[in-house]
Amino acid sequence: MKVLALDTSNRQLTVAILDDDQILATETTTVHQKHAEYLLPIIDDLVKKTDLKPTDLQRVVVANGPGSYTGIRIATATAKTLAYTLGIDLVCVSSLQTLALNVKEEGSLVMPIFDARNNNVFTGLYKIKDGLPVAVLNDCHSDFDKWMDKISYSNEHVYAVGSDARNFTDALKKKFGEHLSFVDSFDNLPQAARLGLYGETLTPVKNIHTVVPNYLRLTKAEADWKAKHPGEEDTSYVEKVN
Amino acid sequence: MKVLALDTSNRQLTVAILDDDQILATETTTVHQKHAEYLLPIIDDLVKKTDLKPTDLQRVVVANGPGSYTGIRIATATAKTLAYTLGIDLVCVSSLQTLALNVKEEGSLVMPIFDARNNNVFTGLYKIKDGLPVAVLNDCHSDFDKWMDKISYSNEHVYAVGSDARNFTDALKKKFGEHLSFVDSFDNLPQAARLGLYGETLTPVKNIHTVVPNYLRLTKAEADWKAKHPGEEDTSYVEKVN
Repeated sequence: MKVLALDTSNRQLTVAILDDDQILATETTTVHQKHAEYLLPIIDDLVKKTDLKPTDLQRVVVANGPGSYTGIRIATATAKTLAYTLGIDLVCVSSLQTLALNVKEEGSLVMPIFDARNNNVFTGLYKIKDGLPVAVLNDCHSDFDKWMDKISYSNEHVYAVGSDARNFTDALKKKFGEHLSFVDSFDNLPQAARLGLYGETLTPVKNIHTVVPNYLRLTKAEADWKAKHPGEEDTSYVEKVN
Repeated sequence: MKVLALDTSNRQLTVAILDDDQILATETTTVHQKHAEYLLPIIDDLVKKTDLKPTDLQRVVVANGPGSYTGIRIATATAKTLAYTLGIDLVCVSSLQTLALNVKEEGSLVMPIFDARNNNVFTGLYKIKDGLPVAVLNDCHSDFDKWMDKISYSNEHVYAVGSDARNFTDALKKKFGEHLSFVDSFDNLPQAARLGLYGETLTPVKNIHTVVPNYLRLTKAEADWKAKHPGEEDTSYVEKVN
């Protein structure tokens, strides 16, 4: 199966092309956040370098959030458009789980962390089973101290993963002590190649058109609207302003 | 420190640009063995994408063998030329150790393997200390059965690493039993980003001009010449035919 995998959830942009378990080509950059400008040319370059045509692709695997609003919108829109126009499968994977794929130690816990400012994070808790991260606590947007309080913990080895993880070193060390490990700067980057390998094993979405980025928090516009319209929590912001 | 790292020892071509422990951009392909054609354009592309000029680079780290004769010649010649013309440091790392950098499990043994045909391999044995592979048995070119006989072993976890490792599954399982692990196809690829991170910690070579690829076996021409000139083992083939 020929697979295109991509993740632009945060500062990193990572793209890979695979054929079954063979990684044909992959590129990862961390320099720009011009993902809208760089993503398609990089996909095009890798497709050409692997002597494929876009129509050879059979599946698109995308990390669809949480993360930067713009980043996950770009990745999800690109993946949906390619899957729809090529008539191929689309698979969505949590952007946090994508990062957790970098840890392999069986039985260890993995906490991928994206800093969301003001002591807030996007995070989740995964446990490595048969070499893959399985969710123990669901991905969430949370104050970091409240998140630490939520975790009941029985001395497993804990890996805090992501370029932002060290922003929370003090609270992590206080909670996990000597059981805490950070990873090196390579394993702090999401790897589209690993995303692609994992995405090959998953069931594709049934209806491509219903896929949306997984924001896990309200946009500022939505939050402002809700503040002005108390008691209308279950009414869609978009329906209301249309 | 701005670093260019590259490895074209085998089928994989991998290039990375780093700034201290930050990986700015990296690309890895496994499709072609046209390394001479692809290497410089990929370096040029990554330098541009990271908004650098070649003169911003401060160090080149190269995997200089063992591996494919042509592959390690291309990487070493390119790295030497860049280091010399830019007047910057050159660091050489074993291509087998570069692959061993993909294993992180403290205390485990790592056996990177390149298939050299007819049951021969390029291999070595490393142990992970403080997160990095340290040589336990030197890199060598050997018949695989003789190599297995050389290893005295006391039940450490052993990782066989490299795209060719599974060609020797039976002999490895016989030797290491349940203590043997293979890694996934991502960790079977050398990663220039990891090579660069490691190479930043090493002392550069004193004289760039003396650097040669580490072939670890004779070329066919050398072997043929030696067969025709028995008893002249310590005479340089190149000096003799000049």
